Amino acid sequence: MNLQISHLRKLYLSGALKPTDLLRQLDAEIGKEDSRNIWIRRLTLDEMMAYVKRLESKSIADLPLYGVPFAIKDNIDLAGIPTTAACPEYAYIPTVSATVVQKLIDAGAIPIGKTNLDQFATGLVGTRSPYGACQNSFNPDYISGGSSAGSAVSVALGMASFSLGTDTAGSGRVPASFNNLVGHKPSCGLLSTSGVVPACRTLDCVSIFALTAEDAAQVLESAQGFDEEDAYSRKAVAEVLTIAEKGFTFGVPKQDQLAFFNNNETPELFKQAIEQLKALGGKAVEIDFEPFLETARLLYEGPWVAERYAAIREFFEAKPEAIFPVTKQIIGGATKFSAADTYLSQYKLKALQRKAEAVWNDIDVMVTPTAGTIYTIDEVNADPIRCNSNLGYYTNFMNLLDLSATAVPTGFQQDGMPFGITVCAPAFKDMQLLTLAAKVQKHSAKTLGATGLPFVK
Amino acid sequence: MNLQISHLRKLYLSGALKPTDLLRQLDAEIGKEDSRNIWIRRLTLDEMMAYVKRLESKSIADLPLYGVPFAIKDNIDLAGIPTTAACPEYAYIPTVSATVVQKLIDAGAIPIGKTNLDQFATGLVGTRSPYGACQNSFNPDYISGGSSAGSAVSVALGMASFSLGTDTAGSGRVPASFNNLVGHKPSCGLLSTSGVVPACRTLDCVSIFALTAEDAAQVLESAQGFDEEDAYSRKAVAEVLTIAEKGFTFGVPKQDQLAFFNNNETPELFKQAIEQLKALGGKAVEIDFEPFLETARLLYEGPWVAERYAAIREFFEAKPEAIFPVTKQIIGGATKFSAADTYLSQYKLKALQRKAEAVWNDIDVMVTPTAGTIYTIDEVNADPIRCNSNLGYYTNFMNLLDLSATAVPTGFQQDGMPFGITVCAPAFKDMQLLTLAAKVQKHSAKTLGATGLPFVK
Repeated sequence: MNLQISHLRKLYLSGALKPTDLLRQLDAEIGKEDSRNIWIRRLTLDEMMAYVKRLESKSIADLPLYGVPFAIKDNIDLAGIPTTAACPEYAYIPTVSATVVQKLIDAGAIPIGKTNLDQFATGLVGTRSPYGACQNSFNPDYISGGSSAGSAVSVALGMASFSLGTDTAGSGRVPASFNNLVGHKPSCGLLSTSGVVPACRTLDCVSIFALTAEDAAQVLESAQGFDEEDAYSRKAVAEVLTIAEKGFTFGVPKQDQLAFFNNNETPELFKQAIEQLKALGGKAVEIDFEPFLETARLLYEGPWVAERYAAIREFFEAKPEAIFPVTKQIIGGATKFSAADTYLSQYKLKALQRKAEAVWNDIDVMVTPTAGTIYTIDEVNADPIRCNSNLGYYTNFMNLLDLSATAVPTGFQQDGMPFGITVCAPAFKDMQLLTLAAKVQKHSAKTLGATGLPFVK
Repeated sequence: MNLQISHLRKLYLSGALKPTDLLRQLDAEIGKEDSRNIWIRRLTLDEMMAYVKRLESKSIADLPLYGVPFAIKDNIDLAGIPTTAACPEYAYIPTVSATVVQKLIDAGAIPIGKTNLDQFATGLVGTRSPYGACQNSFNPDYISGGSSAGSAVSVALGMASFSLGTDTAGSGRVPASFNNLVGHKPSCGLLSTSGVVPACRTLDCVSIFALTAEDAAQVLESAQGFDEEDAYSRKAVAEVLTIAEKGFTFGVPKQDQLAFFNNNETPELFKQAIEQLKALGGKAVEIDFEPFLETARLLYEGPWVAERYAAIREFFEAKPEAIFPVTKQIIGGATKFSAADTYLSQYKLKALQRKAEAVWNDIDVMVTPTAGTIYTIDEVNADPIRCNSNLGYYTNFMNLLDLSATAVPTGFQQDGMPFGITVCAPAFKDMQLLTLAAKVQKHSAKTLGATGLPFVK
């Protein structure tokens, strides 16, 4: 069934569909079986119906997400349902939902389950979970991408209209790209992180997966808002239209700064995407990507991992055996960094921010592949750290440099696996990025996620 | 001699005085003797004259600081003269001046020497130096305050019109208060720190000592400016006039949140200062000072000391015996903090920033004593850590909360030692604070620094 938000809304407004019918149908279709390891905890039909009941007294017109089913990454609280962060022994049952979840529920959306993830949101692969490696929606041999693994796959397979992920280092973009979805990583602080298990508290963002950029924009509208309870929340700055209808300028890294990790097809797919942007009125400019790459390495090799450690320190020290081996290895690496190391890295970052800023004098938006390649689950299992690191090549710098970013699909490999680009810009250009992504999608998309359903332009 | 900038300027413009004459006179008066331990390195008359020579081809009208003598804290570079940071073995000879020094020289000011400080700018007392404890300008038994010790005393004794200090935790305000001067701690990033020995790189500010608030404003105008080379430099935000000519509202901590450390006179002196502000049209409002105090404790007890360690790590490890004992003890304490500790403290700070922000909804400016009491050198030597900590009670939070602040004298103890208040506000209210400080000073000041010369209103 086509779960695009605008499509559902038409059906609801016309009376052709009721939320109860949709949810019964979804529940029956998705069933209890979950061979792809998408879910950590699906809501029962009764649990979903409790949310539907709250809509009865409301008018459809007042609720922009009326009856829209959504999935929630299991490091984000949903009241009454355990939050595990993919670590069963860490689990707790929150009494209230995360602020962003509550906002979506208040806008009429219906939560349908908590999704699988790389444990503690540490990874870009989707395989680092005791709940099983999450499988790609196009081919179960391939990784889903992570850490927001199940959130992406559930939407791609038509189980939910949209989903929430988190994105600290790329977790909201890589799985979007690997499942033919739009993934939006909002400006830092635009969506509240109250009720979200921290990864790197200074960098964490709640992110949105959707079938289309227009849907993502619709969800963003309902989800955003300043939160006094979240010290990292920021008041949105009114968007100044710099990514113009026509004549926008986009930066592309120099040829030798692009990395495709021995993938033979993605270089050509990226070229085609550049041509699409030109066809949409964009002017390509070559930029120096080095400050971005240096920043990415800083995140990967620097003391920010200590934030992940700080977030679960007591648990880590009390129950180290409860932590997934590769996750334990990575987060445990934090103990080698001192306070002085941390400040020295923060100074380096500050200098890189100054360097990277300069690029925005010349371009409206920067364009890169979302990921240079995709791996099979076996490949990742054989070399988990290196594969993961390669997948962050184009994503790790984004939050450190305070950018907003949208991953959008642009093509497919010969074997049917999807490929996409990320458009990014300084913070608070979210709606402009999504508008551009919508154009890209309208220009090239034929189907929605992995559903095979046609993309209606 | 009255070294007020406006006074000197009148003399220069009328031709009644030439810079060469002034500097000869200063050189003779100050002499080679330095019983108060003000200087680490005075410039020779020849060295000063080289700067005077550069003025010959210039017009007085074009140079706002034409022929104005100034002193430089010895952690700020002056080309060709050693920078020691009060650690002889750390010394190096810079080939270029710090950006802020160069700006002042370009505006016509004449450097006359490098001043004594608490080693590596670590302290608020002025006693932690192998060059001797700097003595107060009013009474040599008392501390000068620090870390910008000699910079304050040189101006107070009429040896320079103004001086540069640095202010990370109060080093630009405490010595101002103890020597009857105006001390301005600019908004973070307003004055370049290129060519300044870092203390806490994320918090360091170059500060200004002057005889009057008007002089400080004049110096600030010439000294400020965005510096691309300094990653922590910020573009000034145009000041929105919220501290109005009449009817401004000022916050004062609740009575039980004020601390005077057993000083019997300062509580009354502070009350009198509040009355002065009311007489100037201010409306007093009681505020909750707790978030500010909590922030101050965070700086004092938290991992920020690791920035001081990071700044001199190689030197510290290579030559620990070269470091002043109490300084070594404090900075060495940094090694106990991990990266995780650092992030956890940064989260706490973020939350405190959010809490403290709220106060600015109700007030234009906050007013506190600059220091609750003053100590003798003997008292500080007997209990160096506690005395120093007490002196930071009203100053330690300022840079962590991104405030601008001006210390201004308001009265004297029975024994003749000066007392003053600090007015502070969010960043980039510098000129408004200095305007308010000028009014306070015009209302109450009778003499300039410790010179005994009359303050001309």
